[in-house]
Amino acid sequence: MQQLQAKSLEMRTPQATKTAVLVIGGAEDKVHGREILRTFFGRAGASDAYITIIPSASREPSIIGGRYIRIFEEMGANKVELLDIREREQCEATFIQASLEACTGVFLTGGDQLRLCGVLSDTPAMDIIRQRVRSGQLTLAGTSAGAAVMGHHMIAGGGSGESPNRSLVDMATGLGFIPEIIVDQHFHNRNRMVRLLSALSAHPDRMGIGIDEDTCAMFERDGWLQVMGKGSVTIIDPTEVTHTNEPHVGATEPLTIHNLRLHILSHGDRFHLYQRIVLPAAYRIS
Amino acid sequence: MQQLQAKSLEMRTPQATKTAVLVIGGAEDKVHGREILRTFFGRAGASDAYITIIPSASREPSIIGGRYIRIFEEMGANKVELLDIREREQCEATFIQASLEACTGVFLTGGDQLRLCGVLSDTPAMDIIRQRVRSGQLTLAGTSAGAAVMGHHMIAGGGSGESPNRSLVDMATGLGFIPEIIVDQHFHNRNRMVRLLSALSAHPDRMGIGIDEDTCAMFERDGWLQVMGKGSVTIIDPTEVTHTNEPHVGATEPLTIHNLRLHILSHGDRFHLYQRIVLPAAYRIS
Repeated sequence: MQQLQAKSLEMRTPQATKTAVLVIGGAEDKVHGREILRTFFGRAGASDAYITIIPSASREPSIIGGRYIRIFEEMGANKVELLDIREREQCEATFIQASLEACTGVFLTGGDQLRLCGVLSDTPAMDIIRQRVRSGQLTLAGTSAGAAVMGHHMIAGGGSGESPNRSLVDMATGLGFIPEIIVDQHFHNRNRMVRLLSALSAHPDRMGIGIDEDTCAMFERDGWLQVMGKGSVTIIDPTEVTHTNEPHVGATEPLTIHNLRLHILSHGDRFHLYQRIVLPAAYRIS
Repeated sequence: MQQLQAKSLEMRTPQATKTAVLVIGGAEDKVHGREILRTFFGRAGASDAYITIIPSASREPSIIGGRYIRIFEEMGANKVELLDIREREQCEATFIQASLEACTGVFLTGGDQLRLCGVLSDTPAMDIIRQRVRSGQLTLAGTSAGAAVMGHHMIAGGGSGESPNRSLVDMATGLGFIPEIIVDQHFHNRNRMVRLLSALSAHPDRMGIGIDEDTCAMFERDGWLQVMGKGSVTIIDPTEVTHTNEPHVGATEPLTIHNLRLHILSHGDRFHLYQRIVLPAAYRIS
């Protein structure tokens, strides 16, 4: 009888879900295996998941939002909601705050990272997301522009095809979910190594994370990130830098940076953000 | 009287010139300050220089060769000669070998590095150049394709705009003047970081040297290189690599490489090829 009660309790209580932050390089598979989106779905609670989609970066919020709604509904999420926040004032609305307080997963779509930050930063809605991500109540994912906003410093735009220099990249302030990193997305696909190097020259106290398309750096709360998907995650670690020429904003002279550490990670590889340990996929951590 | 004799002797004997190997990223300034070409001219003996130009990489050898002839003649070289070697058999010719035995500088133009290697490799002409460069009798410069051939392993071609993977780069055998390096030219200008990384994954015992346009890595015989020109020299040092997935030729799966060291050098910076010391421009070595 006691056994039956315990069994029944177990079935009613949702399995404790290990939350995570998924930083996706854009163009993630939405059709076939959907490895990355499926992992987000799982980490948000699987069939118990209440997923809130924020398409504020996009100019076509209902189209892009609708697509993700269908995907997560198909996977079997308990509830999927679209919060099309267009204006900062909407972040005061009770129903928006209620959704963000109750959901188990937030998904930030692609579009324009400056628009996304303009709408969300320093709002009550943003405070709720940040606090719940930090305390492990909420799994967060961002793709493309939604990935760019993850750090405190954000790449707003930039060029390629020239020697690394400070004028090559425009920096702004991101949403700071993982303040230690500067993210660049569509990374090798759009030849962005140079702009990430330029960004790091301005902020050598951060870790550069370049994420390819259909690829994800999934950050656990203990500092480990793990790579998923078909491309690579490039980590540029300036911790041991011995010299830079510290170019000022807009400077066009070529950068000098000595003693960066560079890791090219692929599927299953792990990196610890604070201890700066890198582990191959084959190496199991308990 | 003795003093006068000594003075007279000094004036007649050409100043001993410190030879070097100049690896140029292509599109070097030919019009204005000509810093790189002028340095080559100086290291080849300045007004005593006997410069031999080898345009074999090019499909327009007389046009490109003629341009360099005019430049070095304008600078005041003692003798400038064009050796338009088109066929391997020409490398047996007495006048070609005599030129290469007597000259103080050899300049390899741009074009197609496979053509250049096809004509020169394993020929008596090549043996003369290599032996005289090694013994410090000859200053050698190569630009673009002429730079690509410097290492033992050579990048023959490749792509960009995708995750680093082994199929992205075609490797061949170079002329091996500095066997320890794999050179890539027009480097950041053509977004070639990914193909150099892919090349290094195949040959992690070499040092990756990416050279931007109008930029030169000048190698001294003692192992120091110094950067000249307007862009950057990127050094990717795999010495401390802890893990790679060792992809085979043509493999399309993304690379894994952990613990590369990366230096972005600009004008005046130095790097020691064997000791792997990097020094900023401001740091003077005696």
